[in-house]
Amino acid sequence: MNVVNTVDPRDGRRRATELTETDESRLEAIAEQASQAARWLSDLGRLRRAELLDAIAAELESRRADLIATAEAETGLSHPRLDGELTRAAVQFRMFGEVLRDGAYVEAAIDHAADTPLGRGPDLRRMLVPLGPVAVFGASNFPFAFSVVGGDTAAALAAGCPAVLKAHPSHPLTSHASAEAIGAAIRDLGGPAGVIATVYGEPAGRWLVRHPAIRAVALTGSVGAARAIQAAIDERPDPIPLYAELSSVNPIVILPGAADDRADEIAEGLFGSFTNSGGQLCTKPGLAFVPSGAGGDRLLEALRGRVAAAGGAVLLNERIRDGYEQRAAEFERAGARVSARPEVDRGDGFVVAPTLLEVDLVGLTAEIADECFGPLMVVVRYDDAADLDAALATVPPSLTGSLHHGPGDDADAVRRLVDGFAGRTGRVVFDGYPTGVRVSWAQHHGGPWPSTNAVHTSVGATSIRRFLRPLAWQDAPAWLLPEELRDEYAAIPRRVDGRLQPVVG
Amino acid sequence: MNVVNTVDPRDGRRRATELTETDESRLEAIAEQASQAARWLSDLGRLRRAELLDAIAAELESRRADLIATAEAETGLSHPRLDGELTRAAVQFRMFGEVLRDGAYVEAAIDHAADTPLGRGPDLRRMLVPLGPVAVFGASNFPFAFSVVGGDTAAALAAGCPAVLKAHPSHPLTSHASAEAIGAAIRDLGGPAGVIATVYGEPAGRWLVRHPAIRAVALTGSVGAARAIQAAIDERPDPIPLYAELSSVNPIVILPGAADDRADEIAEGLFGSFTNSGGQLCTKPGLAFVPSGAGGDRLLEALRGRVAAAGGAVLLNERIRDGYEQRAAEFERAGARVSARPEVDRGDGFVVAPTLLEVDLVGLTAEIADECFGPLMVVVRYDDAADLDAALATVPPSLTGSLHHGPGDDADAVRRLVDGFAGRTGRVVFDGYPTGVRVSWAQHHGGPWPSTNAVHTSVGATSIRRFLRPLAWQDAPAWLLPEELRDEYAAIPRRVDGRLQPVVG
Repeated sequence: MNVVNTVDPRDGRRRATELTETDESRLEAIAEQASQAARWLSDLGRLRRAELLDAIAAELESRRADLIATAEAETGLSHPRLDGELTRAAVQFRMFGEVLRDGAYVEAAIDHAADTPLGRGPDLRRMLVPLGPVAVFGASNFPFAFSVVGGDTAAALAAGCPAVLKAHPSHPLTSHASAEAIGAAIRDLGGPAGVIATVYGEPAGRWLVRHPAIRAVALTGSVGAARAIQAAIDERPDPIPLYAELSSVNPIVILPGAADDRADEIAEGLFGSFTNSGGQLCTKPGLAFVPSGAGGDRLLEALRGRVAAAGGAVLLNERIRDGYEQRAAEFERAGARVSARPEVDRGDGFVVAPTLLEVDLVGLTAEIADECFGPLMVVVRYDDAADLDAALATVPPSLTGSLHHGPGDDADAVRRLVDGFAGRTGRVVFDGYPTGVRVSWAQHHGGPWPSTNAVHTSVGATSIRRFLRPLAWQDAPAWLLPEELRDEYAAIPRRVDGRLQPVVG
Repeated sequence: MNVVNTVDPRDGRRRATELTETDESRLEAIAEQASQAARWLSDLGRLRRAELLDAIAAELESRRADLIATAEAETGLSHPRLDGELTRAAVQFRMFGEVLRDGAYVEAAIDHAADTPLGRGPDLRRMLVPLGPVAVFGASNFPFAFSVVGGDTAAALAAGCPAVLKAHPSHPLTSHASAEAIGAAIRDLGGPAGVIATVYGEPAGRWLVRHPAIRAVALTGSVGAARAIQAAIDERPDPIPLYAELSSVNPIVILPGAADDRADEIAEGLFGSFTNSGGQLCTKPGLAFVPSGAGGDRLLEALRGRVAAAGGAVLLNERIRDGYEQRAAEFERAGARVSARPEVDRGDGFVVAPTLLEVDLVGLTAEIADECFGPLMVVVRYDDAADLDAALATVPPSLTGSLHHGPGDDADAVRRLVDGFAGRTGRVVFDGYPTGVRVSWAQHHGGPWPSTNAVHTSVGATSIRRFLRPLAWQDAPAWLLPEELRDEYAAIPRRVDGRLQPVVG
C-alpha cells in the first residue's frame, strides 16, 4: 500500500505519514458502511441532526489548537487565517443546525384531495428527503471550510446524507484529524462509523465517484477535475449529480467617481483582497478596471506601493506554485506589463512574489482575462466607462463581479454594468471586495460556467438542497407519513392547499 | 430543405406538411431571437408574466377544437383523452400564474449587515432569476401536456425564460399549431417573436443543445435520448443542465388483504391504468404483484376477462408499435406466459393487442422487470409478502411505486414496502394507480435514475426551479435592487435575517 506523504510548503520538506492510500477493498467497505449509516442519519430526524451539527462545531473548537497547528504545517497559511477559517467551519455547522430547526428546507407541501378541472384529485404530500451517501472532494485552499469539515460536509450531514471525503493531497493529516473530530461527535451520539469517512489517493477518488452507493458528488476544484469526474459519472449505469465550484476571475470595476473619492482606501482594499491567503481564494479579484485620470493614477500608485513593499507568499503546494509562475509569464507574454513585483526570498519553500500587472483596455486579451491562482492581479486601465460593458463581456463568467462607484458616476452606466454582472456572475458586490464570503441565509456562492457547473450554491443555507430529493406520498394513511407531513404538525412552514402557512407555537 | 411529414397512426398514411426541417441558419436566427426575448420576458416581471400565462391558457381553450382535431390525426389518441390533456395544459399555465402571483418561488432572502463571529458581515440579498433561453424536447405521448404547450414550456415561460421547442416528429402539425397559440398570446401583450419557437428535425435538436444561447435543456423521452443529449452537452465549452424524465416501470403491489377485500375493483383499476392511452404513459404500471390465494385468483380472473374483451390500441408511431411487439416477445422468451391477449383487427395503422403477461415471483428476471412502452402489464404471482422486498429491489427505480392494502395485512410488511418504495421512487401511491398525475403544488414527477437523471420534478409548482438560478446582491443601493429585495416590499414571503416573514396585505 502506498504511503501518504505530507509536505510543508514553508520549507518544501516532505515526510511520510502513517496514512496509506485507500485501496479498492477498503473503499468498498467504506461505501458499504456509508450506505448503512444513511438510514441512521435519516432516522435521527431534523432536531437530533441539529444537535449533532452543534456537537461537531463544539468538537472542532475543542480541538482548535491541534487542528490549526496541523494545517499550518501542511498549507503554509497563517495562524490568524486558519483560526478564522476554523471558526467559519464551526459557524457553518451551527448555521445548518438553525436550518434544520427552522425546517422550511424540507419544503413540506400538502394538497388535500379536491375536485379539480381534471376530476377528483388525490391527497398529495411532498417533502425533500436525503439523497444518500455523498462524495465530497476537498479543496486545496481551504483545509477546513471547504474540506473535511467544510460546507459540503455540513450540508450533506444536515440533509441526512453520510459524507465520504476525498482528502486533498495538500493536507492529509489535517483531513485525518478533521474526520476524527467529526467521528468523535458522531460516536458520542451513538452513531455508526459510516456517517463520515475519508479516502486518500487519486484512484480512490475515481472508484468513489463510480461506486453505486454514492448518490451525488460535490467538488471544489478545477475545471479539469470537474471534466474528469463528469466523465466518470457518465460511465455509471446510473448517472448522479455533480455539484462543482470551479474557476473564477472576479472582475472588479472602479468607476472614476470612486477613484476620485477614495483612491487610497480602495488601493488598500484591493491589495488585501488579491494578496491575503496568498491570493489562493476562489473569490480573489483577478482583474481590476481602473480609470485613467488623476484619481485612477493615485489609486494605482498607492496599490503599486503596497505590492512593492509586500513580502513573499507561501503557496499551498509545488503544483500551485509552478502554475502561478507559469500563468504570470503567460500574461506577460500576452502583453501585460509588470506594474509592481517585489524581490522576495524564495528559500526552500513554495514562495512566490505577489505581482501586479497592468494592461490597457484594448490590450485585454482572453488569455489575460483568465484565472491565475495566487497573488496576482491585472489592472486594466480604461478611459471611458462606456467601453467597459463590451470588455466585461469577454471576461469568463465568475462567482462575483464588483463595482465601486462614487459621486458623479453616471447612474445609467452603473445600471448597465450591474445588469452585465447579473447575467455573468452569481454575486454582485457594491463598493466592496468579493473575498470574505459571509456565511448566512442569503449568501450565494456559484455562478455560470466555469465558476460552477450548474445552478446551485456551495455556501449558505440553500446549499443543503444539493443533497435532497423530492418525494411525494399519494393518499397515504397518516401513520405512514413523516411527521412533517401529518395534518396536525405545525412546527415548520408548510404549503397547504397552495398557501404558505405560518409556524404555530 | 427536407419537408416534414405527418403520419396518421390510425391508418398509417403519411403525407407532407408545409413545414420544413430547421436548417442551421434558421436555428441561428431562432437562438438569436430567443436571446433578445429573454430580456423582455424577464423585465415583464412576475405579475405581468402571470397575465401572459393566463392569456396562453385562454388562447389554448379558444383553439380547442382545432388543436384536438390536429392531434387526433397525428397521435391516434382519443378525443376525450386529448380534450382532457388540453385542459391539463391550460391548467398548468394557470397554476404557474398562481405560482408567480404567490412569489415565494423567487426565494427572496435578505441578511442585513450585522456583526458575526467572523467580523462585520455585509448586507446580502438573494433571489432566483431566470436562467435564459431553454431548449425543450417534446414527448411523443403527450402532444399537449408534455410538448410545445406542456409543463416544461409553462415552467420556462413562468421563470422568465424563452423556450425553443424541438417538436416531436410524431406530431409536427400539433406542435406548429400549439406554438401559434402561444405566439398569439405573446403578440397580444406586445412581446417579441423569440419568446417561443419550434424547431423540426433531429439535426436541429443537436444544434440547439450545443448553441451558446441555450442555458438548460428539458427532455421527456428515452434513456438513449438523454445519453445522446448529455454527450452533446459535454462537448460544449460551457456545460448546461439537462433535466430529463425518462423510463419507468411503476411497480404496483396488491397485498392479500386488498385482494380479498376488493378484487374486482382493483382489476378494473389496473386494467384502466395499463391500457388507457394505449399504455403509452410514463406512469403506466408495468408490473403488478398479485398474491396467490382466492382473492388474488379472483382479481387475476377479472383482469384477464377485461383484457380478453378489449379492442386493439392505436400506438403513436411505427417505431413505438415495433418496439412494443419486440419487447413483448422478449418478455415471453424470458419466461413470461401470456395470461390474456385478445385477437384484434390490425388494419393498416399502428394497432396492437393489449397484453397481460404472467410470471411467478421466482421467474421475475431483470429482463421482464423492464419498461415496455404500450398496453402491456406483467402480473407477478407471489405466495408470501415477505419475499416482495427483495423482488422489488430488482425492479429499476421508477417515478412511482403503488401499494394496495386491506384488512388483515401486516403493518410491518406495509411499512417495509413503503420504505423500499421511498428509496427507489419519486411518489408512493396508496390504494390507487400511478396514472392520472394531479397537477398541483405538492405534486412530484421524478425519481432516481432511470426515471429521471437528477433530483428535479417535471410536474408541479416546484418544476419552475429548473429554469432559475440564484443571484446575490452585496451592499447594493436600494435603487439597483429588484423590487422583491427592497426593504419595504412585503407582497411575497421572504426570509429576512434568517426568519421567514409572512406576507403583508
